[in-house]
Amino acid sequence: MLKKNYILSPGPTPVPERVLLAGAQPILHHRTPQFEKIFAEVSESIKYLFQTKNDVFIFASSGTGAMEATVANLLSKEDTAIVVVGGKFGERWEEICKAFGVNVVRIAVEWGDVVSPVQIEEAIKQHPEAKVVLTTISETSTGTVSDLEAIAEVVKDTDKILVTDAVSGLLATPLKMDEWNVNVVVAASQKGVMLPPGLAFVAIDEKAWRLVESSDLPKYYFDFKAYKKKAPKQTPYTTSVSMIFQLREAIEMIKEEGIENVWERHRILADAVRAAIKALGLELLSKSPGNIATAIKVPEGIDGLQLVKVLRDKHGAVIAGGQGKLVGKIIRIAHLGYMDKFDMITAISSLEMSLKELGYPIELGKGVRAAEEVFMREGV
Amino acid sequence: MLKKNYILSPGPTPVPERVLLAGAQPILHHRTPQFEKIFAEVSESIKYLFQTKNDVFIFASSGTGAMEATVANLLSKEDTAIVVVGGKFGERWEEICKAFGVNVVRIAVEWGDVVSPVQIEEAIKQHPEAKVVLTTISETSTGTVSDLEAIAEVVKDTDKILVTDAVSGLLATPLKMDEWNVNVVVAASQKGVMLPPGLAFVAIDEKAWRLVESSDLPKYYFDFKAYKKKAPKQTPYTTSVSMIFQLREAIEMIKEEGIENVWERHRILADAVRAAIKALGLELLSKSPGNIATAIKVPEGIDGLQLVKVLRDKHGAVIAGGQGKLVGKIIRIAHLGYMDKFDMITAISSLEMSLKELGYPIELGKGVRAAEEVFMREGV
Repeated sequence: MLKKNYILSPGPTPVPERVLLAGAQPILHHRTPQFEKIFAEVSESIKYLFQTKNDVFIFASSGTGAMEATVANLLSKEDTAIVVVGGKFGERWEEICKAFGVNVVRIAVEWGDVVSPVQIEEAIKQHPEAKVVLTTISETSTGTVSDLEAIAEVVKDTDKILVTDAVSGLLATPLKMDEWNVNVVVAASQKGVMLPPGLAFVAIDEKAWRLVESSDLPKYYFDFKAYKKKAPKQTPYTTSVSMIFQLREAIEMIKEEGIENVWERHRILADAVRAAIKALGLELLSKSPGNIATAIKVPEGIDGLQLVKVLRDKHGAVIAGGQGKLVGKIIRIAHLGYMDKFDMITAISSLEMSLKELGYPIELGKGVRAAEEVFMREGV
Repeated sequence: MLKKNYILSPGPTPVPERVLLAGAQPILHHRTPQFEKIFAEVSESIKYLFQTKNDVFIFASSGTGAMEATVANLLSKEDTAIVVVGGKFGERWEEICKAFGVNVVRIAVEWGDVVSPVQIEEAIKQHPEAKVVLTTISETSTGTVSDLEAIAEVVKDTDKILVTDAVSGLLATPLKMDEWNVNVVVAASQKGVMLPPGLAFVAIDEKAWRLVESSDLPKYYFDFKAYKKKAPKQTPYTTSVSMIFQLREAIEMIKEEGIENVWERHRILADAVRAAIKALGLELLSKSPGNIATAIKVPEGIDGLQLVKVLRDKHGAVIAGGQGKLVGKIIRIAHLGYMDKFDMITAISSLEMSLKELGYPIELGKGVRAAEEVFMREGV
């Protein structure tokens, strides 16, 4: 039977047809006034996504490129970074620091747990030499969201720079860069921003910029100073013209919906999935589950890799498995980006049928019912 | 009057409708067998563009990113690179080397002239410590093409690695990586490959790979070893899924035309433009003009920036001006990528009318006639 493909993973996420087609417009040359007008508009309107008045640089790269850019532009040889490591993307900060010769003070957090502001405070006290605190607002690998607002509260009166990887978190969970005093926010296109992968973003404030001025780590393609010099109408190297068209369209959609409504939509979708999982007698991995992706422990007796395969190949539901040390142990249902309630119903329904097929004792429809109850209660 | 927008600049170049629409397909998740099949197919078929059997890595970045990647992956701290500098993109190699602490032996070439193989031979003799020779097959800033085959002939029996920036050269001028013994070829999507900007490529052979093994310069996002490990089905970090769909379509088009025919088409288009320029009594900048873009000296008494503006704003013809030290002094008509004979007629016609408007004594239609004569003679 005809089977559609449902992307229910935490990135890449589905791209709205409006945005896909915006990318099919004829190319404009990136150094013409016609394109400069669009790029300047996007450079300004993208600030809304970060809730900031600061510069947001746009790179042709994946999110990892923007993470590397942040380390290479803020730090200098032999500098020290406090790094929160509670999953694969915390590990990535650590790996990048090591690749660039930056000393790492590691705050190890159990995968699925969150760092407490007190831990950050203590690390800062014990390591006054540290220049930055590298965090992950939404640890995609575990579905866990940190209390970045509280973390920012303990960092803001120090001389440390608070950086957060919001690649999967942006727009799916509240993040108010300026109000909260977050100094650097890293993000990418293929998650909450509802674009294909290929663009990455770094929002940076004045406090962080002082580190950029003195940084001596090698960089060229990602050199913030070169981007600053060309802002807001151009980039130093050729930007992804088609994706800028798409970004303009996506920001327009987000503005139409309103960022608070976007956050709230993600909260409701996540609540519905969590209710379904509970109703099905399954267990969440995260001790602080966020609204980006729900990580569910694969139940005893079920092969997690097989479950992902059945979901995908039998039902067309692309639900992510585990990463790193969680391979085979969890699945992750995303409620991220261009998703509505029936995407969640599809996810839960496909999970019910897949578990049943694999012989797990489950009552069909029970999870869906719980999700529907949430939607009815929320009036959506 | 309605005015279409004609991209006649050396990148970004026009993208065929087939390719634009290929990018509007729904997203696939990059870690699924469905997408892996496509990525593996593209990883193989892209080799045809480079005329190689070697690995070609695909990066989400602009061409400059792939240039940085090449320096950071081949070289180590305090290594020496021989760099040919005869334009803005030769300068870029030099700047990247300096940013990464690599010593540069500079072969300075007048902008518009080419390096001779003898100069390369001498530089290698005088600098046996050099590990790489960084060249630019097509110096986009001057419209000049080097004799890379002859350069490779003098490098191949040494222990040096020959690298060429083929960002604008690939497909527009013959380049046979394996047959000529070029060790590393860098390219990007928005030129001869007929894609939007946003992807970059590095083709690398075994001789060059030995340098990668020992390189100690910092890198993470562009780390070749990480790409090698994931090849040919995946990339270490999220690839630009939509652009991979487009790349597949573009390679298909190039195969349908045949690479020799693509090269020959560029040669004929360039011949026609050169004939037109001569007929109009204008002068070429380059002493070795290639088939990528024709750089034309702005005639005495004409403001070069104004000429570019009239071409663009009055006629919709986006023809590039000069870069770096050539700003205002030249214009560059590209015959690059998805272009046919009437694109060249449009370029020449718009130039004729613009020069006339600016008061330059020119016989309307004379350049077009000369171009038509070339097309008639070539039977196209």
